[in-house]
Amino acid sequence: MFVACVHVEVIPHHRDDFIAATLENARNTVREPGNLRFDMIQNLDDPNKFMLYEVYRDEEGMAAHKKTAHYLTWRDQVALWFTKARERSDYFSLFPETPEQWATNLDEK
Amino acid sequence: MFVACVHVEVIPHHRDDFIAATLENARNTVREPGNLRFDMIQNLDDPNKFMLYEVYRDEEGMAAHKKTAHYLTWRDQVALWFTKARERSDYFSLFPETPEQWATNLDEK
Repeated sequence: MFVACVHVEVIPHHRDDFIAATLENARNTVREPGNLRFDMIQNLDDPNKFMLYEVYRDEEGMAAHKKTAHYLTWRDQVALWFTKARERSDYFSLFPETPEQWATNLDEK
Repeated sequence: MFVACVHVEVIPHHRDDFIAATLENARNTVREPGNLRFDMIQNLDDPNKFMLYEVYRDEEGMAAHKKTAHYLTWRDQVALWFTKARERSDYFSLFPETPEQWATNLDEK
């Protein structure tokens, strides 16, 4: 799997706007066939820092995401809400080891 | 959910050892009742850099993990394999929005 970790730091008075816009993007992104996860997490020490943890089947899945209407809308919405350019690091996954294992079923616990 | 992101950079000739030890830790960690995810991902630009993406139901779940035999074994195994101290950032999740949504079912796609 291809994983993109996007670190952002938002202007405090745009924090709620950023969260709302990103929730909308997330809800649509997880419906994309190439997407497996889109987690938005907020830093415990600094509520203005967020990470987007995006998992796609492959790099093409990420490329397809960047052409969607919901991504482009989000990108334009949030453009002026950051204190600095967002930073992205790309990874591939070693664990979970199989595609099936990416399905974490809470019901099993 | 409580999320710990652990960034590590390993000494190149211990990279395979690190991967093997961490896979063993991961396989056991995802069986803990308080754990939802333990992803090990490898940086595309630098194969010596890894991130561990650990999701627990709450901070107590993480505390329980740190008392397990598999965690303590891993901690001791890898202690001398890093180029610098590992860095951890803690988060809480905003998306997925419900516990049920943390169950990403590949079969649905």
